[in-house]
Amino acid sequence: MPAADLMTVGNLGESGLLKRILPRLQGAPALLGPGDDAALIAAPGGKFVITVDTLVENQDFRLSWPSGFRSSGFDVGWKSAAQNLSDVNAMGAIATSAVISLTLPHSTPISWVEDLADGFSSAVRELGACECAIGGGDLGRGSELSITAAVTGALATDRAVLRSGARPGDVVAVGGVLGVAAAGLALMDSSVSHVEWTEDEKVLVLGQRRPTPPLAAGPDAARAGASAMMDLSDGLLKDGRRMAIASGVAIDFDTRSLEADALRLSRAAARLGREAMDWVLGGGEDHGLLATFPKVEDLPDGFRAVGMVRKSTGGEPGGEVLLDGRRADSAKGFDHFEG
Amino acid sequence: MPAADLMTVGNLGESGLLKRILPRLQGAPALLGPGDDAALIAAPGGKFVITVDTLVENQDFRLSWPSGFRSSGFDVGWKSAAQNLSDVNAMGAIATSAVISLTLPHSTPISWVEDLADGFSSAVRELGACECAIGGGDLGRGSELSITAAVTGALATDRAVLRSGARPGDVVAVGGVLGVAAAGLALMDSSVSHVEWTEDEKVLVLGQRRPTPPLAAGPDAARAGASAMMDLSDGLLKDGRRMAIASGVAIDFDTRSLEADALRLSRAAARLGREAMDWVLGGGEDHGLLATFPKVEDLPDGFRAVGMVRKSTGGEPGGEVLLDGRRADSAKGFDHFEG
Repeated sequence: MPAADLMTVGNLGESGLLKRILPRLQGAPALLGPGDDAALIAAPGGKFVITVDTLVENQDFRLSWPSGFRSSGFDVGWKSAAQNLSDVNAMGAIATSAVISLTLPHSTPISWVEDLADGFSSAVRELGACECAIGGGDLGRGSELSITAAVTGALATDRAVLRSGARPGDVVAVGGVLGVAAAGLALMDSSVSHVEWTEDEKVLVLGQRRPTPPLAAGPDAARAGASAMMDLSDGLLKDGRRMAIASGVAIDFDTRSLEADALRLSRAAARLGREAMDWVLGGGEDHGLLATFPKVEDLPDGFRAVGMVRKSTGGEPGGEVLLDGRRADSAKGFDHFEG
Repeated sequence: MPAADLMTVGNLGESGLLKRILPRLQGAPALLGPGDDAALIAAPGGKFVITVDTLVENQDFRLSWPSGFRSSGFDVGWKSAAQNLSDVNAMGAIATSAVISLTLPHSTPISWVEDLADGFSSAVRELGACECAIGGGDLGRGSELSITAAVTGALATDRAVLRSGARPGDVVAVGGVLGVAAAGLALMDSSVSHVEWTEDEKVLVLGQRRPTPPLAAGPDAARAGASAMMDLSDGLLKDGRRMAIASGVAIDFDTRSLEADALRLSRAAARLGREAMDWVLGGGEDHGLLATFPKVEDLPDGFRAVGMVRKSTGGEPGGEVLLDGRRADSAKGFDHFEG
């Protein structure tokens, strides 16, 4: 066998690899954790939410970038946890369990996989998902590196907060940052060498590498009577349009309320010749929350008003996004199969 | 756009593809099904089991075979459902929800993906998982086709049946078929053209393409007081060794009790120049159950006695598999990273 730091997945058997990874997957205690056919999890309230998401190399993440930056296994593990925890958050629920399935090429260094497990666990812990047990998972071989996580959650109140509940007159609110992950992506993807990044730019890149969904805000919004809520994974306009269609309403964003978000990104935008407001409106992967509330006084800590729900003007497909009262170009945002 | 039957994933956007797939993913009604950030599922008993498994093209399944046979999307969808439902079954639980994540190359025909969704749903229904809601999932692009499913289940009794509960003196029992999937795999992988397969051989191939975990048997075993149980996914010897190690015992298979299993495979074995008993002892992917019971009278319908639990002889790593009282070659069976 090669030296420890050069060991790859191909050098270890499945059980050997599991022994390296499982001790690193530390969450809340499960009723029964990894090692059997399935994990056993408590379901407070007798129901639960469940979601699943996959990250694929060179599609959802890259290991090396034009800027010279290299993504770590830790970053990828963090991101996998964060995006799934965010989906649970967006239902007004508190994560109770996670399972992970890894598909690994033979040449993947063991240390990279260990780092991924550390990143997943750290996100669960540092994002505050302290009731989330990591129930083990599955390991397999493939020519392409990918990581799938499924996460369950318990509702914070007696109802889930759906996308379909927005009503004309509701206040539209956002929890979490906007455009930071997109700005970070643009930096990683640019020809500006990563060694020249300023401290502010490094913060933006960190927002792309390790998004921080506001996990207290989802349950808080449910308790505060949010009428609709969803995860901001594909950008404010695209996700807003989804909520508008699900609710059969128009969602009208007030761009003045987003100027502070754009200002934060303006230096990086200038350096890369981009528009900061495009990142705020169209940038995905921040994993904040888009929610609607009957009254502005209902907004819990962590949310800020960014617009109003209006009656749909009746156009197809039954809902639309407006910017300052005018129809927005809702094509901005991410679609896996477009282009 | 090309003609309907030639459409690929690359021709449709993510939402277009979802519209094709979601109506085909029919299980039991969820409290809230696909379309929001997460699905909402009832958790009878206030706890649940959860498992996850991935199938990757050319690793866990192939689309074309040396025999000229071509695997359908239906087969792959069925297999994904079956192997996850089997893990839940092996805990003594009844499946309550499934979520699916698909990674698809651009060139994947839409019809193949629809067929996969049909196969997944059909397995849930035809295997008898009539309480399993299909809670939606995730779609993404990749260079390699893969499907990950996570399935949750409710315990049939007040306890999960673990691998670690086998005690000396217990009867070892099997539910479901042994070696059929391995025989089918050998046929698909052989140079004997698939058009020359006999009716008996087609049945073996079907066992590989669409395994039939005995989903009533897991809960029945829990109710009957099974002391240990696990899914037979990697072969009787390899999985038996895992149970022996988890329980700190020796598991002694009586090969006479397996002769009927081998007999069923003997013609196909003769045609391919293989040993039928090798398939019975080492063949994976049948997704039957290996269980232990305190007394032979405890065995519920669908189980047959195949051996005894004995005291471990104290060798490393604390448990072993015997064949007729002698140490078995436990290397038989499947490991994703070996070889």
